[in-house]
Amino acid sequence: MQITAAKIYQSIETIRDKAPVVHNITNYVVMNNTANALLALGASPVMAHAREEVEEMVNIASALVINIGTLSESWIYSMFKAVGQARKNGIPIIIDPVGAGATTFRTKTARDLISSDPPTIIRGNASEIMALYDDRSKTKGVDSAATSDSAIVTAQKLSEIHKCVVCISGATDYIVEGGRIIKVMNGHSLMTRVTGLGCTASALCGAFAAVEKSSLAATVKAMAVMGIAGEMAAEKAAGPGSLQMHFLDNLYNLSEVDIKQRLKVEE
Amino acid sequence: MQITAAKIYQSIETIRDKAPVVHNITNYVVMNNTANALLALGASPVMAHAREEVEEMVNIASALVINIGTLSESWIYSMFKAVGQARKNGIPIIIDPVGAGATTFRTKTARDLISSDPPTIIRGNASEIMALYDDRSKTKGVDSAATSDSAIVTAQKLSEIHKCVVCISGATDYIVEGGRIIKVMNGHSLMTRVTGLGCTASALCGAFAAVEKSSLAATVKAMAVMGIAGEMAAEKAAGPGSLQMHFLDNLYNLSEVDIKQRLKVEE
Amino acid sequence: MQITAAKIYQSIETIRDKAPVVHNITNYVVMNNTANALLALGASPVMAHAREEVEEMVNIASALVINIGTLSESWIYSMFKAVGQARKNGIPIIIDPVGAGATTFRTKTARDLISSDPPTIIRGNASEIMALYDDRSKTKGVDSAATSDSAIVTAQKLSEIHKCVVCISGATDYIVEGGRIIKVMNGHSLMTRVTGLGCTASALCGAFAAVEKSSLAATVKAMAVMGIAGEMAAEKAAGPGSLQMHFLDNLYNLSEVDIKQRLKVEE
Repeated sequence: MQITAAKIYQSIETIRDKAPVVHNITNYVVMNNTANALLALGASPVMAHAREEVEEMVNIASALVINIGTLSESWIYSMFKAVGQARKNGIPIIIDPVGAGATTFRTKTARDLISSDPPTIIRGNASEIMALYDDRSKTKGVDSAATSDSAIVTAQKLSEIHKCVVCISGATDYIVEGGRIIKVMNGHSLMTRVTGLGCTASALCGAFAAVEKSSLAATVKAMAVMGIAGEMAAEKAAGPGSLQMHFLDNLYNLSEVDIKQRLKVEE
Repeated sequence: MQITAAKIYQSIETIRDKAPVVHNITNYVVMNNTANALLALGASPVMAHAREEVEEMVNIASALVINIGTLSESWIYSMFKAVGQARKNGIPIIIDPVGAGATTFRTKTARDLISSDPPTIIRGNASEIMALYDDRSKTKGVDSAATSDSAIVTAQKLSEIHKCVVCISGATDYIVEGGRIIKVMNGHSLMTRVTGLGCTASALCGAFAAVEKSSLAATVKAMAVMGIAGEMAAEKAAGPGSLQMHFLDNLYNLSEVDIKQRLKVEE
Repeated sequence: MQITAAKIYQSIETIRDKAPVVHNITNYVVMNNTANALLALGASPVMAHAREEVEEMVNIASALVINIGTLSESWIYSMFKAVGQARKNGIPIIIDPVGAGATTFRTKTARDLISSDPPTIIRGNASEIMALYDDRSKTKGVDSAATSDSAIVTAQKLSEIHKCVVCISGATDYIVEGGRIIKVMNGHSLMTRVTGLGCTASALCGAFAAVEKSSLAATVKAMAVMGIAGEMAAEKAAGPGSLQMHFLDNLYNLSEVDIKQRLKVEE
């Protein structure tokens, strides 16, 4: 597989054309950004977490994104129901283990979710990914970064065990599937000063996975688009407030030329 | 009734002057935008959903806006309590049936809410309005649009049965009361790429209904202001991110001249 | 104590350097803004409200901010657990009694929280502060302002009883500790048209208290930074939408010169 600007843009056009429904069970902090990013890209976000409707909502969705950023018992119950239904329907499941490693409750929930019905894609930062497997890893808050080398080893193990793609996002994003590692080097450091851009990345993985057979390709495309829209935004931004605004504008306007000029993927 | 720019602006001035309290029980995705839009217009938003306080909060409010975008059992319980209290107090009730038709749970909740204490105004897109009456209608997500003609027939039936105003929003907004139909043709297609602008429209209906006896006039005014602020924002915006920002700025600065130059109402 | 621009900037540099974890249990409306403001300032926000993890999250935090803007029973339960753990760990506790006085439930919850484990800092507007002590005070919504004189008397009583700092925010912010009153006269009236800037102020109090021994100094610094970033934003803003964006940008870029040129503190 060679990820080219042309292939990425083709997927964007498919998303804009088909407007796939992406069902998000995500945290309170980022719901608005997540919905806006999906809309800007061309997808159709839905948010529903009630046990009474979660499976029926999954039935109209082309991808399911589960994010554990602000957990509680009743939400977890619905997450499991949704994941089970998504697996039954054969649609891609994206898990974002926000803050895994920070508390026992989060780590356990994230691990249980992944074990019950293996996801298609797991996306987190290095310390979150490590917390999914390694009991000694510790997270300081939700924005922490562990060393990437040990995170890559963990990602490979997780990928093998659960037969899924694992993405470690950071200054360089590592997208791992079995023995393969693809690096995406787009993005900008100012993006770490805006809440929820990691969560947005997971949602975009959902949109790409909805229109793309290879979940490896979908993840690489999503991370590249994320990074490119983010670095274009950072160039115009005076700070994190304007970065968020420009990011959505750029995501909406992203052209094949933008991608061609900026894409930094290493296979 | 003839809705003129002067009359719309008069209502805006009344809102700015009286700062009516609008109580919102709405979804997690849009709470921030809803509060900001009401503040930008000049109203005083409150958000409260706990069963312990919901009736007391209704008691200090001049309008109640119920939005079912992210439902759960305990919120529904409070919605019914709030609606009952609002009816008792004689303040306007606005129902936004987000995603009705997408799941049985939403459709049922929306219908039950409308039947228990008939609202003053119902605002939704065509497929949501149809789902309130027609069992065969289906919603694809929350942003779907059914054909407007059959939606208008449904709106007329709902209006007659519940003695309320029904607004079908879309490229053209249809505001229906009994046999009357008023069209508002303001707005811009880029608005559909920003999450929650429909929910914002419902909140603005609440603000106008708080200061205006005719709920038909209040709805028309709210939809016109929404559309005008939105199209002015779209002209300045580079995409959906900047549209949201300019929308709030324009709502805050809206002048009688702006309205006069742009108003497109057809009775 | 003399609060100078140099001292304020020194604290900002410490925050940027140490990135203290600030744990927020706050309302749905402002979570995104709160997290973004803390990130823009240089702190590390976490949000967690589940009873299963709230104490463990407090254990990795350097400050706890409790905001009662959108209460419910299960959240209150977690707030008490978190406050108890924070007290045990000796980290600063900031209470924001949003809407106290508006309903019996809010007033009672706010008072109970303050009595159970006395906070380090209480920040609210005049009517909210009065509602914490005076049974006759009434709040009209969450944005109400009572007369400041009687609010100051109440603040002094609360400060004496609970051995804490009380901040009454408004056009002038009054920061009260026992017999001492410090005034901060920065800020801009347009800030009242953006939802959640009060909540943001409380969160910033948490960030400053995390790196500053004197809670009086921390509160004054936070309110000054809030006001200065806000008035700089208001000068560039076309309305409340762009004010929110510029506010985050300014908070991120704030320099010692900005503070020196604008600081209006009166001891």
